Amino acid sequence: ELHVPLEVCGAVVKRELDFWQIEELQIKACCWRHYRSYIENQRILNSFNKSLEHEQRKIDLSNLKGWRLLQMKLWLIMDHPRTSKLAMLYGIASFLFVAASIAGFCLETLPELRPKISQNRTLASCNGDTKQLHVVMASNEALNALDFICTVFFTLELVMRFLVSPWKLKFVRNPMNIIDLLALVPLYVQVIFEQSDLQSCYMNERFVIEIMFILRIFRMFRIFHLVKHYQALKVLVYALRASLQELMMLFIFLLIAMLIFATMIYYAERTASEEAGTKFTTIPIGFWWAIITMTTVGYGDVAPSTPIGYIVGTACAVCGVLLVALTFPVISNNFTLFYEHVRSRSLVKFAIFTTETDRRSTECKV
Amino acid sequence: ELHVPLEVCGAVVKRELDFWQIEELQIKACCWRHYRSYIENQRILNSFNKSLEHEQRKIDLSNLKGWRLLQMKLWLIMDHPRTSKLAMLYGIASFLFVAASIAGFCLETLPELRPKISQNRTLASCNGDTKQLHVVMASNEALNALDFICTVFFTLELVMRFLVSPWKLKFVRNPMNIIDLLALVPLYVQVIFEQSDLQSCYMNERFVIEIMFILRIFRMFRIFHLVKHYQALKVLVYALRASLQELMMLFIFLLIAMLIFATMIYYAERTASEEAGTKFTTIPIGFWWAIITMTTVGYGDVAPSTPIGYIVGTACAVCGVLLVALTFPVISNNFTLFYEHVRSRSLVKFAIFTTETDRRSTECKV
Amino acid sequence: ELHVPLEVCGAVVKRELDFWQIEELQIKACCWRHYRSYIENQRILNSFNKSLEHEQRKIDLSNLKGWRLLQMKLWLIMDHPRTSKLAMLYGIASFLFVAASIAGFCLETLPELRPKISQNRTLASCNGDTKQLHVVMASNEALNALDFICTVFFTLELVMRFLVSPWKLKFVRNPMNIIDLLALVPLYVQVIFEQSDLQSCYMNERFVIEIMFILRIFRMFRIFHLVKHYQALKVLVYALRASLQELMMLFIFLLIAMLIFATMIYYAERTASEEAGTKFTTIPIGFWWAIITMTTVGYGDVAPSTPIGYIVGTACAVCGVLLVALTFPVISNNFTLFYEHVRSRSLVKFAIFTTETDRRSTECKV
Amino acid sequence: ELHVPLEVCGAVVKRELDFWQIEELQIKACCWRHYRSYIENQRILNSFNKSLEHEQRKIDLSNLKGWRLLQMKLWLIMDHPRTSKLAMLYGIASFLFVAASIAGFCLETLPELRPKISQNRTLASCNGDTKQLHVVMASNEALNALDFICTVFFTLELVMRFLVSPWKLKFVRNPMNIIDLLALVPLYVQVIFEQSDLQSCYMNERFVIEIMFILRIFRMFRIFHLVKHYQALKVLVYALRASLQELMMLFIFLLIAMLIFATMIYYAERTASEEAGTKFTTIPIGFWWAIITMTTVGYGDVAPSTPIGYIVGTACAVCGVLLVALTFPVISNNFTLFYEHVRSRSLVKFAIFTTETDRRSTECKV
Repeated sequence: ELHVPLEVCGAVVKRELDFWQIEELQIKACCWRHYRSYIENQRILNSFNKSLEHEQRKIDLSNLKGWRLLQMKLWLIMDHPRTSKLAMLYGIASFLFVAASIAGFCLETLPELRPKISQNRTLASCNGDTKQLHVVMASNEALNALDFICTVFFTLELVMRFLVSPWKLKFVRNPMNIIDLLALVPLYVQVIFEQSDLQSCYMNERFVIEIMFILRIFRMFRIFHLVKHYQALKVLVYALRASLQELMMLFIFLLIAMLIFATMIYYAERTASEEAGTKFTTIPIGFWWAIITMTTVGYGDVAPSTPIGYIVGTACAVCGVLLVALTFPVISNNFTLFYEHVRSRSLVKFAIFTTETDRRSTECKV
Repeated sequence: ELHVPLEVCGAVVKRELDFWQIEELQIKACCWRHYRSYIENQRILNSFNKSLEHEQRKIDLSNLKGWRLLQMKLWLIMDHPRTSKLAMLYGIASFLFVAASIAGFCLETLPELRPKISQNRTLASCNGDTKQLHVVMASNEALNALDFICTVFFTLELVMRFLVSPWKLKFVRNPMNIIDLLALVPLYVQVIFEQSDLQSCYMNERFVIEIMFILRIFRMFRIFHLVKHYQALKVLVYALRASLQELMMLFIFLLIAMLIFATMIYYAERTASEEAGTKFTTIPIGFWWAIITMTTVGYGDVAPSTPIGYIVGTACAVCGVLLVALTFPVISNNFTLFYEHVRSRSLVKFAIFTTETDRRSTECKV
Repeated sequence: ELHVPLEVCGAVVKRELDFWQIEELQIKACCWRHYRSYIENQRILNSFNKSLEHEQRKIDLSNLKGWRLLQMKLWLIMDHPRTSKLAMLYGIASFLFVAASIAGFCLETLPELRPKISQNRTLASCNGDTKQLHVVMASNEALNALDFICTVFFTLELVMRFLVSPWKLKFVRNPMNIIDLLALVPLYVQVIFEQSDLQSCYMNERFVIEIMFILRIFRMFRIFHLVKHYQALKVLVYALRASLQELMMLFIFLLIAMLIFATMIYYAERTASEEAGTKFTTIPIGFWWAIITMTTVGYGDVAPSTPIGYIVGTACAVCGVLLVALTFPVISNNFTLFYEHVRSRSLVKFAIFTTETDRRSTECKV
Repeated sequence: ELHVPLEVCGAVVKRELDFWQIEELQIKACCWRHYRSYIENQRILNSFNKSLEHEQRKIDLSNLKGWRLLQMKLWLIMDHPRTSKLAMLYGIASFLFVAASIAGFCLETLPELRPKISQNRTLASCNGDTKQLHVVMASNEALNALDFICTVFFTLELVMRFLVSPWKLKFVRNPMNIIDLLALVPLYVQVIFEQSDLQSCYMNERFVIEIMFILRIFRMFRIFHLVKHYQALKVLVYALRASLQELMMLFIFLLIAMLIFATMIYYAERTASEEAGTKFTTIPIGFWWAIITMTTVGYGDVAPSTPIGYIVGTACAVCGVLLVALTFPVISNNFTLFYEHVRSRSLVKFAIFTTETDRRSTECKV
């Protein structure tokens, strides 16, 4: 029987085993967990460190001249708020614009701030016949102005950042930049349409309006610019990526339980349905109910009302509580590991809007 | 006083104690937990390993010939998707049929897809008198076709799998196969009835329709075919089986709390009931309320409305939160143990739709 | 600086410190937790063991004769279901009566089983004037019979158990026996009143009916007879008793948060209240809302409806989630400790309805 | 490769590394967590101990005479309930007044206790024109008396405590004293107004009433006087302060998820909104919904009702459950650490209303 001393970490034991050419699978089940946990943690933390270092390429500004030097300096200021005081100030200003844009976006939807000028403009359409254009997107004056200013700023910023970026291809591929671009489209489309005669042709089309609406949502995703400033978000992203297998497991467990309970509640409430008393008219409604019950949210918009339905509901609620209890320790493991590692190693700052002052490196890390 | 060194695992200590013939119960309470936790884990993991190995019988294909060899090869392909590429492809195809069948099953219930031809057919019944047959199960054409194709596939698959199975008795006993068989019944019964004159006799009977409905639910249980492909489900099943005692405990605690709180809320809301203001008209409704409150789902379809009822409700909510807090660490223990053991030992693959490539064994494991 | 080796448990370190007369408070904060955790656990587990042993007094049946021997044997059978096969069988029978009694109690409240004979009997009252007696407690025939049989059984059992009990005073003091007695009162009172002429005097009095109703609840508490059979309940009771300080802390935290949030929501929703739109008409309603929000139950019967109310509600929900997150690891600690200790040491059986077979003791433990 | 022995705590390893001048960052990732966790804990516990000691300044009463001695003794009695029996008794009496004040405050809002004398007094206003003064704050006689007695007591106590306080500036700066003062204002303002002719001028003003109402809330904050008596509250406060970074993280994660899901649900439910079927009329309503869903409270006052809305709702519920699961172990860490440290070290008493009897110090700690 091969047991492992608990006073040294698994990596030391592994080196010893490798030296004596003993296979690690001969370690007994009782010691296996201690042995592997250190090696597992090391593996995950190494890949995490590599990801962080991948972002922290060292840039040597000394052998750059003229435009290249200026470009690099501007790039550091615009894209890496932690490299200098100026970069941080620019970062704060940029983030304030994002916040203002989002605030305007949210306030726009308040009925108090929306002047209801529902004028029906009759316009000569491109087909020659006149059409009634119902202006639904009437907005507040101040919010419109704010929106305009923000759009101008974001346009300039995006163009500037593209120009100063040393790696154009990487810039184009970055999902954040694509979101920034898409978030700019709606206003420009609106401007173009309002100026041109084409408005009447496309503006009334259901499809165009739909896409315009969806593009407006991208404005909200600008909030992810915060990742640059708040590095705990990076830890979250890496932890979720490292726990992909565990998350998949949770989702599949939830999916299977959802299918089973939705079917059961649909049949359990069938008789009540015939008497028009239930809301479980279809199985997909049952999906919604099962998820909301298993996550213990429980809105109560759909709820069982027959004795058999109560039994299915009880099973669903207890099952949800169990699923959560079983899978949580497994899922939260990686996040706790990353967070503690990163915090104790000071690799990442958890405060917002700070510049990195790393005594261990004289070169600027990006 | 007998204390235990914490640098070696409990199994080593046990061997030492056995050698010197010292009884393990003389170990002091402070060290007992360290001592036993390793032995407990070893015991649980050994039984878990045995269950896994029980499934992984080694099959030697070399001394089989003709029909036996073909049978065995087909069986591996149809029942063990991890043994070869072909088996995996067949597994994926089979699972797509299951998914299609379930999707059709769910979509059937949507009112948009259900043509409401509520024709009242007058048929000569077996008793000689004419009966009004109200066709309630009218379905969409495309869904009917999908249902038909799936049924044909599942019938062929079940027959094939029975023919190629080397252990017929074990095949018949397998609950998955019984579910598959029962899931096929409703369509065949429908086909038989529609072709024959017997329809009018039995089709209107409440009892037959009830059973037909219940059998339709079995179609949903085909989702458990996923266990073959996704082995985390196996871990879940074994973990739940190993934690049976802890689950029992949770259920009994919930049951007792449910009984107590249901009675108390019924009597607390009694006076309001007399004024027709409450929904706690019976104690069984109180059961439902107590469970939904203790799992913190809280639909709000039944909720207390008197001062005493509020106090009982507060006690119930806090009690539920406590019960969950107390029993969860005990319940989640086994699942975490199995999951980490299995993951680190690579005994089971957590990805879906993969073939097993075990470098440690040249024979195919089934 | 005094540090502690982590390879030996705290109790060993303590003995060493005591020997060298070093004060334990000189141990540095970093090692203190390791040092104390073992000693704390030992202290708690010792008190737990003592409680268990307190119940397991050894009884020597050899020097008892005649009535004393019979009494002792009957007492073991009736009160200690784990001492012999016969005792277990009696225990099961007794518990079935409890279950039947509770089932009848619950079914009584179902309107389907309650024959609504609301006859108004005119009776000559003790005051001389006639009174209208509205019979509200009309019940189902079968349930009445079941109730009668159970009452007879429980009466006989209680009398028998009192007679055979070797320690009468302890028997009288036992809360379970008082509950049993009180649960018997309502039926006897009913019988007495129906037979006598006194019925009209007291039966209509509000006070008497109230007390009769409350006494009926005691029938439900008979479920605690299960403690005799299911020892995990004992672990729960001891764990809650050992965690009294932590539970107090949770309750005080909840109480303070409840007071603060109830006041804040009352004032936040004040303006809406004036427009008759809110349900937060009083601060005590706010208490109910705050508790239901902080335990994340969220019925939705009372919910904020103003912008400031939404902010208070958000704070309350997040605060509740935090309170639970902070106090849970501290509260669940003792239960997990007891459960694992007891389970590994086999001191207590976690199955229901078993006889204790303890190889380490030839005397019967009670 | 530098690994760390697991049998000694991190602080010992650190001293060794410092001696040999080896940089701690050379320790491998696998051992890093063990190494740092002890040092982290020591750092947090030291700062916690310092905060506690900061409060426990030693006061030498021997060299004080006359008024100074009396002042100091009174101050100990009034402000430090743990220093003597008399101080504890005074503390209990003082707390009973607080409890009575809060109880009165809550009962005031009950409609049963509020005599609805909605008399419209016509008063000569300061402007010369008569105004209708609607007396809305009509209260119960007994509650008014209680309120008056409490106000007198709290006024006397505050004046006394100011007079006997040895550090006047610190007393004025203490937020608890400011709360006490502000809580006294409303009654005095009311008394002044009722006596004077100024009533009609300001009493009807919206602004004055608003401030009066808000000041009334401060009465509830008197509950924090409990911190003096119940020291677990101190542990909570310090733990929250030490976990500020983790709490910030939770809030930022919740904020970002709230923004994203609110926008998505608003656009998902947009079409239903046009048909007047939804309640998601604005994005801020979506904020409320997202928070209540992610904390799994789920009132159900706003809930999605379209298929896309159901999908967004499912994502939001699962996301909330995940956020809670990921961040909780990190947040609860400090509280558990402080609680266990404090409890094992007996630095703080967890019972309410006790005097401190510290055998290790003859001087009174304040």
